Amino acid sequence: MTVTESDGRKRVVIEGISPAVDDGLFPAKRTVGDLVRVEADIFTDGHDAIAACVLAHREGSDNWIEIPMLAIVNGNDRWTGAFRVGELGRYGFKVQGWVDHFETWRRDLLKRIKAESDAAVDYLIGADLVAEAARRASGSDAAWLLQRAAVLRSGAEAKDLRIHATDAQLHELVARYPDKRFATESGREFMLVVDPVCARFSAWYEFFPRSTAEEPGKHGTFAACEKRLPAIADMGFNVVYLPPIHPIGRVFRKGPNNNPESQPGDEGSPWAIGSAGGGHKSIHPALGSLEDFRHFIAAARALDLSVALDIAFQAAPDHPYVSEHENWFRKRPDGTIQYAENPPKKYQDIYPFDFESEDWAGMWEELKSVFDYWLDQGVSIFRVDNPHTKAFPFWEWAIPAIKRDHPEVIFLAEAFTRPKIMYRLAKLGFSQSYTYFPWRNGKAEITAYLSELAQTPVREFFRPNQWPNTPDILTEFLQMGGRAAFVIRLLLAGTLGSNYGIYGPAFELQENRPVRHGSEEYLDSEKYEIRRWDLDRPDSLRPTIARINDIRNSNPALQNDWSLKFHGTDNDQLLCYSKESDDRANLVVTVVNLDPHHTQSGFVTLPLDELEIPQDRAYEAEDMLSGERYLWQGPRNYVELNPARRSGHILKIHRRMKIETDFEYFL
Amino acid sequence: MTVTESDGRKRVVIEGISPAVDDGLFPAKRTVGDLVRVEADIFTDGHDAIAACVLAHREGSDNWIEIPMLAIVNGNDRWTGAFRVGELGRYGFKVQGWVDHFETWRRDLLKRIKAESDAAVDYLIGADLVAEAARRASGSDAAWLLQRAAVLRSGAEAKDLRIHATDAQLHELVARYPDKRFATESGREFMLVVDPVCARFSAWYEFFPRSTAEEPGKHGTFAACEKRLPAIADMGFNVVYLPPIHPIGRVFRKGPNNNPESQPGDEGSPWAIGSAGGGHKSIHPALGSLEDFRHFIAAARALDLSVALDIAFQAAPDHPYVSEHENWFRKRPDGTIQYAENPPKKYQDIYPFDFESEDWAGMWEELKSVFDYWLDQGVSIFRVDNPHTKAFPFWEWAIPAIKRDHPEVIFLAEAFTRPKIMYRLAKLGFSQSYTYFPWRNGKAEITAYLSELAQTPVREFFRPNQWPNTPDILTEFLQMGGRAAFVIRLLLAGTLGSNYGIYGPAFELQENRPVRHGSEEYLDSEKYEIRRWDLDRPDSLRPTIARINDIRNSNPALQNDWSLKFHGTDNDQLLCYSKESDDRANLVVTVVNLDPHHTQSGFVTLPLDELEIPQDRAYEAEDMLSGERYLWQGPRNYVELNPARRSGHILKIHRRMKIETDFEYFL
Repeated sequence: MTVTESDGRKRVVIEGISPAVDDGLFPAKRTVGDLVRVEADIFTDGHDAIAACVLAHREGSDNWIEIPMLAIVNGNDRWTGAFRVGELGRYGFKVQGWVDHFETWRRDLLKRIKAESDAAVDYLIGADLVAEAARRASGSDAAWLLQRAAVLRSGAEAKDLRIHATDAQLHELVARYPDKRFATESGREFMLVVDPVCARFSAWYEFFPRSTAEEPGKHGTFAACEKRLPAIADMGFNVVYLPPIHPIGRVFRKGPNNNPESQPGDEGSPWAIGSAGGGHKSIHPALGSLEDFRHFIAAARALDLSVALDIAFQAAPDHPYVSEHENWFRKRPDGTIQYAENPPKKYQDIYPFDFESEDWAGMWEELKSVFDYWLDQGVSIFRVDNPHTKAFPFWEWAIPAIKRDHPEVIFLAEAFTRPKIMYRLAKLGFSQSYTYFPWRNGKAEITAYLSELAQTPVREFFRPNQWPNTPDILTEFLQMGGRAAFVIRLLLAGTLGSNYGIYGPAFELQENRPVRHGSEEYLDSEKYEIRRWDLDRPDSLRPTIARINDIRNSNPALQNDWSLKFHGTDNDQLLCYSKESDDRANLVVTVVNLDPHHTQSGFVTLPLDELEIPQDRAYEAEDMLSGERYLWQGPRNYVELNPARRSGHILKIHRRMKIETDFEYFL
Repeated sequence: MTVTESDGRKRVVIEGISPAVDDGLFPAKRTVGDLVRVEADIFTDGHDAIAACVLAHREGSDNWIEIPMLAIVNGNDRWTGAFRVGELGRYGFKVQGWVDHFETWRRDLLKRIKAESDAAVDYLIGADLVAEAARRASGSDAAWLLQRAAVLRSGAEAKDLRIHATDAQLHELVARYPDKRFATESGREFMLVVDPVCARFSAWYEFFPRSTAEEPGKHGTFAACEKRLPAIADMGFNVVYLPPIHPIGRVFRKGPNNNPESQPGDEGSPWAIGSAGGGHKSIHPALGSLEDFRHFIAAARALDLSVALDIAFQAAPDHPYVSEHENWFRKRPDGTIQYAENPPKKYQDIYPFDFESEDWAGMWEELKSVFDYWLDQGVSIFRVDNPHTKAFPFWEWAIPAIKRDHPEVIFLAEAFTRPKIMYRLAKLGFSQSYTYFPWRNGKAEITAYLSELAQTPVREFFRPNQWPNTPDILTEFLQMGGRAAFVIRLLLAGTLGSNYGIYGPAFELQENRPVRHGSEEYLDSEKYEIRRWDLDRPDSLRPTIARINDIRNSNPALQNDWSLKFHGTDNDQLLCYSKESDDRANLVVTVVNLDPHHTQSGFVTLPLDELEIPQDRAYEAEDMLSGERYLWQGPRNYVELNPARRSGHILKIHRRMKIETDFEYFL
């Protein structure tokens, strides 16, 4: 046969399947318990009715579940079907579509009956279709269908035939045995990675373990860290993140404030990893032993806190890797090893790995084993330092390999770089990523950026983790806006980002002194020295932080990003947005005064229909920050925020809604 | 090795390649002589410089041309490279990217020199890189490079080293021998179909051959058709399109005005194809012989007119296919063949093909052979009737198979159906398609629809052919708007659509009587009877049509759709838009009064910067319809259009522009 290899009678077309990342090249991301809505454009030639389904399974399992798809009303040939993913790991799905001759016949027969046109031959056609379904069926279903076919073929009274041809039982039973001989199947299997819920909803608290000693000038220990945990848990966080805990290099060690010359006694940067005392699988002796670390993890777990470790793939000149694997680093013609640099700046305390090494494969295995090592110690969250300066193919291989054995692992990409690079890392497997949030302070830029993250296909693979500050980032806004600036950024991070975090002590205490004018580095940065923080200072933001985390933890609306919608205000310093829970039972509207200096007021406008708020009666807007309750009416309501007292409202909107629940396909 | 199959050192990522239809599943469309701009997101980890190129070839040829790509300024990691396609047929391209160590070195060295930092070891590194390039080079280039490497290694004066390390000759010569050991290549080859120019720019004139007899009541002939050609050519058309020319079925033949009962002497519908006299490869005897048809084609060609034939894959009950290939049609249980129907409507004069036939492959071959037959007679344009009621896999196979031997063929899809189906047909190979243009009469709906066609990725595969009327479509707008309605629709079609057409005689003479109120069918439609048209009537639109075609033919701006931009007006009845030629030398601004009844006036606003019109001096706007010249100034200019006299301006904008031409890669 010259025309084609495949059967040309597969008449149904399937296009535009979602969720799909880069047309299915990469998995889409979900969390345990999520409802996965699959959509596709499905159609055929001519006027025949069609049917379609999603076929889904856990990766590696032969147990495929078939989920019927339905055409979306006025959906322009778009079909949808949904199933719930109940477990960690990878799932796959395909879409199948076929011409449904029985449904075509049934639909046309109903038209003929309505038009009172002759249908004698149509009952015979129907009889054949029912008999065919009987051949695909078995047991009592087959018998029932054969009997019904005989009735349709009997030439009985038109009235009787009509009833027997159009009843629901026949419809349902034939649909159970579809004719899929010429079914079209989407070519590729589309993948999903199902992560733990805290990949979608988490509040991170970062602190430097070495700054936890109670005695001034002393080096902190894991034991001292443990004492910090109850306060962190009380504030409502669920992840504590520690900068690197490994031995710090002595060669070219940096002094305080990034001084290239260090003095004896200077502690150096925890990111200058490795010394004679060990490397990425060792613990800085001053912090304690591996046993102490494991004890710390257990103490955290007892408080429902997960510990996130910082993985920074770079080596101090005295890291054991340098002597043991010289070929993992780039040699210069003078025999020295190439240190990190961004000319004319030199970072002689750090050697980057050479991903073009002859022994790249051996190096990959070793780097992956660093994750494996800490997994074995009970860590399952990794904040990866500068992943964009390591070769992409490494992450593409390493992350799925690690998650195959540990589907619970979460990787946060610390990639403050160009957007396509950040997105690529997310596609390759990073569960979460830092974002440009720290530098988005105006209404237009916040709206544009957060809409891109929450409303475009980017959300299928890129999960933002919103940080107002980090040890590397003290923004101008925080430097200049006083206490209100911290409150504003906290409000925004905690309500815009279902994942957010703070570099804790500095944030609680509103540390805002830069090392010099125009810099985003902290003065006396903890990166280069031990700091002591008076966390019980009366002006601490701890109560506000605790309040916001409490609101987050008790409002499912704030535990997802996809429902984020921005709403109009008539004042550019007022930002208004809402989030809803998946079941739409919980609606939270946040209004923030972006100006840390002045009172701002104006009207906010809510799309009542879209939010299913009744047009015709007042509704309660309960400010969960202050406990105040407002009776709002109609779409436009007045707001006035004085940053000296408050910078925002987090409003629970009380509305009456009927919640519909359907039968669900559960995988 | 357990880590990966491929070499992990391919560090460059290539994403988002365009042009690509459905991620490269289908070819993008171009016409002979087009410049193809390839774009891709290309980046790598870290800070290394990268380089990239497009590799392009004619399908089947081993002669790949390498076109360098450049990063788009502020392009967010988007790169571009362009080449011109000179011949009909299929082309393929890939994108290649690699880390450019020499360029990284050169860039960093320049920074070091500027910062006056020590660079002694850098010259040694450079020497190694130049020596490596020498190994990839040969002959005098290799010798030159080796010599330069020796200079860089010589430890000469810093000043000399600087000059020898940074001169343009070294830069250029090393770039000629890139290190592609770890180059990344886009996985898939992306395809282009290059069609004749008239796939992009054409003006179609449709008429019924049987209505061309000079003597009333007589059946027209190809000889009579020939006599019509000079007038059509004089009007500036370049395609004449004939409804089906085959024998018409006698069984269930339709009478005038679609009467299900015909009388002896009724001619029937040309789309009810086939009788004892033959089928899709035969000619209606009343029209003449095959020889006459070939003579007609030759006469058209002598006037630079191409002939388009209508291919309608359906059969009258007495078509020879029905008796010879009963299994190509669907049998009913009563032994009859299933006629076309849309219950309760029945079309008993037409049998649709059954694309689920057991002999589908044989049927496909026969249907394809219909095209082959008429190609052999000199036809190379086909208007395909209702392609969306034939199985998509048939077109997916047939069109590329036909174009393999006849890359000059153009297929126009007569698919007035849902958008995704129309787009699918275009993806599968249809060169042009009818559109919803007939029903887009308001400013907002015209702007939205034409912007979708001209400005979104749809344009890569879907070429609109804009028709104000067809024998099936007499819109309400034309029925009710009098002569001005025809002028408006002609102006819009001819300037919005680089491809457009009219159902000629009815349009010229502004035939606007529907068969009944609320119907889009013509009264006394030519589809069911012979009509005589008095084409010399003094109120004919012929001069206006000729003027518009003349403007189209002499303004390259109107010969493409991609440059279409809509501009603001302060009156919703005034539509304003512009088109430019590819080289930007020709700029045409069209303003249309969409109201056929009343004078409308207002200001139109042109984006002067975007159109490169000087802000600070007046510019000439020459109305090519009336010959009038206006001196416009600034972005806002006043327009007033009285439909009793004129419904639009087609303005050539005279501006001074410098046209830049670059070296071009020509395939």
